[in-house]
Amino acid sequence: MIKQQEIILPSFKRGFHLITDIILKEIKEMPQTGMLNIFVKHTSCAITINENADPSVRTDFENIINKIVKENEPFYTHNAEGVDDMPAHVKSSIFGVSLTIPITNYTLNMGTWQGIYLCEFRNYGGKRKLLLTFFA
Amino acid sequence: MIKQQEIILPSFKRGFHLITDIILKEIKEMPQTGMLNIFVKHTSCAITINENADPSVRTDFENIINKIVKENEPFYTHNAEGVDDMPAHVKSSIFGVSLTIPITNYTLNMGTWQGIYLCEFRNYGGKRKLLLTFFA
Amino acid sequence: MIKQQEIILPSFKRGFHLITDIILKEIKEMPQTGMLNIFVKHTSCAITINENADPSVRTDFENIINKIVKENEPFYTHNAEGVDDMPAHVKSSIFGVSLTIPITNYTLNMGTWQGIYLCEFRNYGGKRKLLLTFFA
Repeated sequence: MIKQQEIILPSFKRGFHLITDIILKEIKEMPQTGMLNIFVKHTSCAITINENADPSVRTDFENIINKIVKENEPFYTHNAEGVDDMPAHVKSSIFGVSLTIPITNYTLNMGTWQGIYLCEFRNYGGKRKLLLTFFA
Repeated sequence: MIKQQEIILPSFKRGFHLITDIILKEIKEMPQTGMLNIFVKHTSCAITINENADPSVRTDFENIINKIVKENEPFYTHNAEGVDDMPAHVKSSIFGVSLTIPITNYTLNMGTWQGIYLCEFRNYGGKRKLLLTFFA
Repeated sequence: MIKQQEIILPSFKRGFHLITDIILKEIKEMPQTGMLNIFVKHTSCAITINENADPSVRTDFENIINKIVKENEPFYTHNAEGVDDMPAHVKSSIFGVSLTIPITNYTLNMGTWQGIYLCEFRNYGGKRKLLLTFFA
């Protein structure tokens, strides 16, 4: 059994955002046992799982990834779409756009402290499309 | 067909550890053709695939990732759980907590030199839970 | 329904290469709705999704990842296979070797600007094996 559902996230500002509840609210029904794949249809944002409690984690994520993948590197050649664009592409591939999460007893089987993050790497990324695929 | 099995890894010290054999020993049976998803239920360790032969690779992994994601960055605000905690969260999202491996002829179909690593980023991470999902 | 197919990519030079068309040409048929997992059977290259239009993105990818994961770090101990080898292992785990893409209406359901990259991290990586697993 495979089912797909596309959802559209509201615009988020640049940074890391906990979206577990948004995703759960959009999902109509989950299988008893299975997997959910969340696929981001963009190349300048990403999806990951991390700490769902303390917002300071998300703040630090934004600052450390900006240090690892810097803007304005003198060797960048893909500059036409703004200084945040090329770093956004690289960060997108580092964190990834395809995330598979197990489903048990009709719900996502994540650890107690795990939540789903949208990683918005553009200054003005706009709405973002996610494709959810359930298989059971 | 979907089957799930939770396994608990013993405590590993901080670093990269080859756990292919531990996982294979825990698995009761694999389908003839399918996929295995390994999902780490934590936010300060990760799972990845890399070189299964020379232990020096795992040593170098620990040293290079500590250089890329440093402790004690002056801008970190999530410091309450120790200097190894915030870097551990970032490393966890860089390497990822969900890994899908193909199964062929009742066994994992990895390359000759590929093994499964637990990446333990905390100084004292304790036991770690993995959820295995088989689908066929 | 699960089907598997191994494909062999030609040798690519070190760098990031758009391989969407090569993969689509090799695939005999796709299910109406499902998922494709692409699994790289090597530890010194990777697979990722990123911008499919402007080749300057791929050039910048190569330069920025070489800055993040440097060659000739004084602490590297795994040096026997060349200065490009240990960095290649680390980059492989950062970008990943297992990529799952949704299938809708018999084709890959990626965003308009998304393409599949082979990330070749060795100077002379040679031919690379990918295992495709379709499930529906």
